[in-house]
Amino acid sequence: MNTITGGVCAPRGFRAAGVSAHIKNLQTTKKDCALIVSDVPAVAAGVFTTNKVKAAPVLWTQGVCVRETARALFANSGNANACTGAQGLSDAQTTAEMVAEALGVAITEVCVCSTGVIGVPLPMDRIANGVSDCLVALSATGGADAAAAIMTTDTVPKEIAVEVPLDCGTVRIGAIAKGSGMIAPNMATMLCFITTDAALRAADLRTLLSDCAKHSFNCVCVDNDSSTNDTLLCLANGQSGAPLLEPGTADFNAFADVFLKICIAMAQALVRDGEGATKFIEILVEGANSDAEAQLAAKAVAQSQLCKTAFFGQDPNWGRIACAVGYSGAEFCQEHLRISIEGLEVVHDGTPTPFEEAHAAELMKRRDIHVHVSLGAGPGMALYWTSDLSHDYVSINADYRS
Amino acid sequence: MNTITGGVCAPRGFRAAGVSAHIKNLQTTKKDCALIVSDVPAVAAGVFTTNKVKAAPVLWTQGVCVRETARALFANSGNANACTGAQGLSDAQTTAEMVAEALGVAITEVCVCSTGVIGVPLPMDRIANGVSDCLVALSATGGADAAAAIMTTDTVPKEIAVEVPLDCGTVRIGAIAKGSGMIAPNMATMLCFITTDAALRAADLRTLLSDCAKHSFNCVCVDNDSSTNDTLLCLANGQSGAPLLEPGTADFNAFADVFLKICIAMAQALVRDGEGATKFIEILVEGANSDAEAQLAAKAVAQSQLCKTAFFGQDPNWGRIACAVGYSGAEFCQEHLRISIEGLEVVHDGTPTPFEEAHAAELMKRRDIHVHVSLGAGPGMALYWTSDLSHDYVSINADYRS
Repeated sequence: MNTITGGVCAPRGFRAAGVSAHIKNLQTTKKDCALIVSDVPAVAAGVFTTNKVKAAPVLWTQGVCVRETARALFANSGNANACTGAQGLSDAQTTAEMVAEALGVAITEVCVCSTGVIGVPLPMDRIANGVSDCLVALSATGGADAAAAIMTTDTVPKEIAVEVPLDCGTVRIGAIAKGSGMIAPNMATMLCFITTDAALRAADLRTLLSDCAKHSFNCVCVDNDSSTNDTLLCLANGQSGAPLLEPGTADFNAFADVFLKICIAMAQALVRDGEGATKFIEILVEGANSDAEAQLAAKAVAQSQLCKTAFFGQDPNWGRIACAVGYSGAEFCQEHLRISIEGLEVVHDGTPTPFEEAHAAELMKRRDIHVHVSLGAGPGMALYWTSDLSHDYVSINADYRS
Repeated sequence: MNTITGGVCAPRGFRAAGVSAHIKNLQTTKKDCALIVSDVPAVAAGVFTTNKVKAAPVLWTQGVCVRETARALFANSGNANACTGAQGLSDAQTTAEMVAEALGVAITEVCVCSTGVIGVPLPMDRIANGVSDCLVALSATGGADAAAAIMTTDTVPKEIAVEVPLDCGTVRIGAIAKGSGMIAPNMATMLCFITTDAALRAADLRTLLSDCAKHSFNCVCVDNDSSTNDTLLCLANGQSGAPLLEPGTADFNAFADVFLKICIAMAQALVRDGEGATKFIEILVEGANSDAEAQLAAKAVAQSQLCKTAFFGQDPNWGRIACAVGYSGAEFCQEHLRISIEGLEVVHDGTPTPFEEAHAAELMKRRDIHVHVSLGAGPGMALYWTSDLSHDYVSINADYRS
């Protein structure tokens, strides 16, 4: 990938800002309001939490995406505006209204997102300050500020931008993300905002976004909880000058390929910065009856508290991996099960392969651990990424809210 | 319940023993072999792990239960005899053979169970010592020794016995259990052995056992992992002198009621002794469309790492409970959601009820916490029991195996 600087402002015709409006805390000046604006109406598509308890901004922004185009995206951290009833819905709409009025665009063209504490009404006076300060700060170099403003328990900002040379012209894709638990609803939420100056139809962008989410954000876990606020949004404004990308063409496929890589990079960045994480674990399952069954098996290992504590303890504890695969729901015969960790085969046809414990212990010290499970049942395969479960995870999440 | 002493030996016609055969460790004299014998052939029924990776003794004992009667049950801790291939199956059979020969019963009347490290062949010379020492120690007061011998990471033995006065005569039920994670496959497994001197048909005992498991052992979790060795076994030998219990009669129902209570008591004992547990949490979900959906919601809360760390942190963090219920798959409208913790309403119709944090914090200090979730959708309800997720849980499970 041909990475460039600028984050969400790298694609042409996008400006951004990130400011502190003291939503998180009156005492700190941590940025907590972000604004991304497209100079022209952009095609918008979103993938949202499937949680039955949806935050007010999720309900609002789903409505914007149905209408297909958007001009702006305002996000705050420090308050999730979730479980806030009718007041919350009205506050989300008022936020959109303030942005729309200042930019001279329709209220239905403004997406809003929130992340932070559940059940507390948005402090609308501070949100108003955040909106006006963002409008003043808005610039073509504001991508990094926006990335910083959406952080909660994240320890590092997450942004990326790439240039994609196509036969029909060069386009750019930029993205910022936050999330440090796949969700700790009081403290975190997965948010990812992608901008591109490519020209796409709304329906094609929707399909692409949802396909890419399946193989990126839906293949990672830190703590298995899916938030009330999770949102993946993409704005495509066509300002590259390159013509409309037609599905089925080589250019569309090349674009889609890079788009997926960006989604995977952002999803992996969430896991690497997972709450308390000391390791990044990739689980490859192959030989399943279907890709879906392979994903069940990979997900079971990725979500298993016992596997995750073993990774933290740097213990090549293949028994826990075999056990998780066994209860995952994937069909296989235990006589065909094979497991390797960092290239070292530890189980062959259902029975342990003798290995030197000292060598295995050395491999387990690595920051990135690759687990390879082969079920010997069919052609299905899947990848999943997870973090380990550490004392710091418990400390971070056992802290009293106040 | 009219509890009595004696554990699995309280019902008439049962003897038991527990001895040390150094399976766990050559250095310690911790008991690790248990034997339970019925003086006459007993009707046998079992509920076994659904894991695709099944330990050799599980496969053997499933076969015994198909044949309906058993005379003895031999169990060892310290070695799970799982992922041990053809050698493991042969070792399980040899163990049954040794017990059968010594008792002069058929090999197909001997159940065997194992719990402990995965992937290591059973040390058959020590197992042979364990079998012969158990035969010598066998007595009508050996229930407590058997309870001690099946412990792994358990901190307390788990046994119970009750007398059930029926119109047709008095019968007794005894039980021992072990398990401290719902499973940590290298260190623990859920095992529960129930004896009774009531007379029941094999088919009726099977149905009763499987119905009771649904509302007891299938409603608890410590770490969400289901073992390669989980086994719930019941032997009913009819030695009480009371006539055969006929399903549908008042006596059968009275017996079934106490039988369920014993299963719940043993299941709750596992959770209370859960690895690293500092709290016991009961989750009651009502107002779901069905009992099955209520169980989905209760299970999601019980399994949520975020809820479990909040309980450990003594934080009345209802946002995490609302979030878990929201992604559980149970249908409901967030406008009807109500949540109480220890009788204190914290969410009413989807929005937070103002409460005094100091009061809530005081309630959360209790050892037992009751969470009540109302979905407002229908008549379905379910109960689930779980432990909290503590630093000790991580320490216990991050320890290197050796």
